[in-house]
Amino acid sequence: MTAYQTFLTHIAELSDILNAISILKWDARTQMPPGGAETRGYQLATLTRVAQEHFVSDQTARLLDAAERELAGADPDSYPVRAVQQTRQYFDIIRRIPLDLVSDKAALEPVSEGVWAAAKQNNDFASFAPYLQKQLDLAKRQADAVGYQDHPFDALVFEYEPSMNAAKLRTLFNALKAGLLPLLGKIVANDKPLERDLWQHDYPVDKQKIFALEVAQQFGYDLNRGRLDIAPHPFEISFTRQDVRITTRYNAKYLPMALYGTLHETGHALYEQGVDPELTRTPLTIDFLGKYPVGGTSYGAHESQSRLWENQIGRSREFWEVHFQRLREIFPEQMAGATPDLLYRSVNRVRPSLIRVEADEVTYNLHIMLRVEIELGLLEGSIQVKDLPEVWNAKMQEYLGVTPPNDSKGVLQDIHWSGGGFGSFPGYTVGNVMSAQFLAAAQRDTPGLDAALASGNYQPLLGWLTENIYRHGRAIRRVNCSCAAPGTI
Amino acid sequence: MTAYQTFLTHIAELSDILNAISILKWDARTQMPPGGAETRGYQLATLTRVAQEHFVSDQTARLLDAAERELAGADPDSYPVRAVQQTRQYFDIIRRIPLDLVSDKAALEPVSEGVWAAAKQNNDFASFAPYLQKQLDLAKRQADAVGYQDHPFDALVFEYEPSMNAAKLRTLFNALKAGLLPLLGKIVANDKPLERDLWQHDYPVDKQKIFALEVAQQFGYDLNRGRLDIAPHPFEISFTRQDVRITTRYNAKYLPMALYGTLHETGHALYEQGVDPELTRTPLTIDFLGKYPVGGTSYGAHESQSRLWENQIGRSREFWEVHFQRLREIFPEQMAGATPDLLYRSVNRVRPSLIRVEADEVTYNLHIMLRVEIELGLLEGSIQVKDLPEVWNAKMQEYLGVTPPNDSKGVLQDIHWSGGGFGSFPGYTVGNVMSAQFLAAAQRDTPGLDAALASGNYQPLLGWLTENIYRHGRAIRRVNCSCAAPGTI
Repeated sequence: MTAYQTFLTHIAELSDILNAISILKWDARTQMPPGGAETRGYQLATLTRVAQEHFVSDQTARLLDAAERELAGADPDSYPVRAVQQTRQYFDIIRRIPLDLVSDKAALEPVSEGVWAAAKQNNDFASFAPYLQKQLDLAKRQADAVGYQDHPFDALVFEYEPSMNAAKLRTLFNALKAGLLPLLGKIVANDKPLERDLWQHDYPVDKQKIFALEVAQQFGYDLNRGRLDIAPHPFEISFTRQDVRITTRYNAKYLPMALYGTLHETGHALYEQGVDPELTRTPLTIDFLGKYPVGGTSYGAHESQSRLWENQIGRSREFWEVHFQRLREIFPEQMAGATPDLLYRSVNRVRPSLIRVEADEVTYNLHIMLRVEIELGLLEGSIQVKDLPEVWNAKMQEYLGVTPPNDSKGVLQDIHWSGGGFGSFPGYTVGNVMSAQFLAAAQRDTPGLDAALASGNYQPLLGWLTENIYRHGRAIRRVNCSCAAPGTI
Repeated sequence: MTAYQTFLTHIAELSDILNAISILKWDARTQMPPGGAETRGYQLATLTRVAQEHFVSDQTARLLDAAERELAGADPDSYPVRAVQQTRQYFDIIRRIPLDLVSDKAALEPVSEGVWAAAKQNNDFASFAPYLQKQLDLAKRQADAVGYQDHPFDALVFEYEPSMNAAKLRTLFNALKAGLLPLLGKIVANDKPLERDLWQHDYPVDKQKIFALEVAQQFGYDLNRGRLDIAPHPFEISFTRQDVRITTRYNAKYLPMALYGTLHETGHALYEQGVDPELTRTPLTIDFLGKYPVGGTSYGAHESQSRLWENQIGRSREFWEVHFQRLREIFPEQMAGATPDLLYRSVNRVRPSLIRVEADEVTYNLHIMLRVEIELGLLEGSIQVKDLPEVWNAKMQEYLGVTPPNDSKGVLQDIHWSGGGFGSFPGYTVGNVMSAQFLAAAQRDTPGLDAALASGNYQPLLGWLTENIYRHGRAIRRVNCSCAAPGTI
């Protein structure tokens, strides 16, 4: 075996352990009985510690050194060079994080998520607040351990969006706010109700699932390597490209919730299922920091794919021209008298709303901005956990002109903070921007793409995305962390 | 911390890793899409290797030594002494097994199980034979590594039933055969059909599940720490007492399949859920050889509980006096004109049949005997894998007077060999014997027990079993392995 192959064998074990952690997390969110939360926390803590010890070991250092020497002078764009480079970059950062912090975080996550789920159900922010405080304290400890120049947020966002930092985000959101707020005002002033509300009917959940899964498969989701479950906060998760699972949630009347939730996660899943088999269990499908997406190059890049398939494709007029007939077959009474055009307008209505994952494309980034501002405040200390409901509601009123009737539809709506995911929200906005850019590039490169999409043939688009993005896993990632002095990583 | 506490902390990590392995196995059998089998194999192999390395490490040796010194002279029946003793016994045996054998076995298991499931479905023994051969070869390697005096089987059965060996089993089964074959002959000669066949009707699966789960909960199964799923070969599995899952399978006409399958696994689950919380993550709830049951003292002891609740309780006349009314509420048309007495007789009919898990209590041990004889022959080399269908069918004809119409209902019916479980079958017969002994002991100790059972109050029985068996986990196990020289462990 070459030094590089020996290195790969060592890292493949790490990949297995990280994938096992993901399986335990998927199970905790979709299958686990409530009584199992605490011991699941121990299991996750131990596996996370095992992974961490495996990665920061002297053996990794030795094998990495040997692989670097062996590959000196090789093509810098080749997979081996990229794989070794990324491992080196993360190795140097992760060795700064104390082992007990890693296992504390892992142990807290399922407990905290369980408390959050109950708090959301019971509209009880106070019961969740101590756990959020613990997550915040751990996040601050991590930021201090990793190090940063300007803002503790910079050390955390690196985990999700390596090229971002607090300063760049303030600039980005200020520009967005300046453009979006007046636009939203105009739309609201001119809003007219649709001639007909399709979401007054009952749409049985089992039939909703049939339709959504059919579309997901037409997009290219392979059920031989995937499955769809229910989760209160939908997500996609992958345990190698061979097992890529999605979740959704159902509203018996509001069909778009489960449909677009499924198509969103399908976009993530297509990315993961499209990774080159050769990259399985290599550094180029590993998120060394232990957060998914494992196969994708960043949260933003990943989100660009979920939003491309959900919005650019799934909410297009062409989509409903193709799929309306099948929807009417499944829901003949509910769809009596409806048209593709009505469907198109029904799923694209712009209006300020309370829930991020149900927001339209004009208001969506305002929801993200609000969360990022709060995270910055929490990390700086200018916002206290106990004041969050009040801060949240005030910002909702300021940006969107609506106030949540309760915390379940306000500050408790998202799972992210319960899992300690500070720094993950910017990826959504980055993804929104990238999704438009990627579709434009695919259209430029692919004659007949629009005609294919209009006929329900998604293969040319999937092919372009797979060829240019998916198959490369994390190989196209350029790490540019604001958490350390420029040039050191 | 005392030396014993330090030792417990170290072993708790091992417990977490072994429980994670169990979660991955449960997922592979109930949820995983087919495409995930191969990479799941890598994940299981790596985790199994990690567990093995953790256990046989110099650190374990050091902490074990220190704990032994500290506990010298302590009460030999106390949990700490038992915990250290058992760890020592397994430590000495497991260090004989090469690491690569352990990970080879773990990697093969999910692949082999997948091939077996397909072979069973397609009645295609030939496709499974090469995988069975691989499992057999690994089992022989393990027997050689562990060592034995008389028969390779002795080194394998230790994993499941420490006090058993091939010689004792031959004696036991010869006695059983001498008693059971004439008894069966008499019953068959005098068999009369029931006046009415209840299993001609359709019993919708969702309603079957409702009834079975209601009974399971009345027995004491806690759904806050458990759940019921579907699996082609039902099993119970525990990831600590806080998360104890059962599975069953459904036949739309033959209601007893899912009902008694569920009650059988419920018996296993009551054992696991009843372990003292203090023993969670300690050596007294660990199966160091990496096979479940994790909490129970041996396969036989565990099986005694599944069979006690399934048969002694679930097939009793009193059971149907209590539960018939509810069954008729759920299935009014199917049960029209039926009586508790007819139910009782319908679920206790004795006749030779093809499938072990559906066998009555007279023929059940003959199914086990056949399997044990085949395992002995495979390990000795007197039976070849390719000849198994023929050998199986001949023995079925000899002992039970029936010949399977195909291999799916013959040699392919059980999952055990696909997972490499050579040596696990004797536990079923040992469990049958123990279940009668335990119920008799409970009746002796508990005034009014029979009256309570007749009124559907299972608490006194559960209480006796919990107090005398369940809560102790593996503390009452006495390891007496035939695989090494007497007295060495």
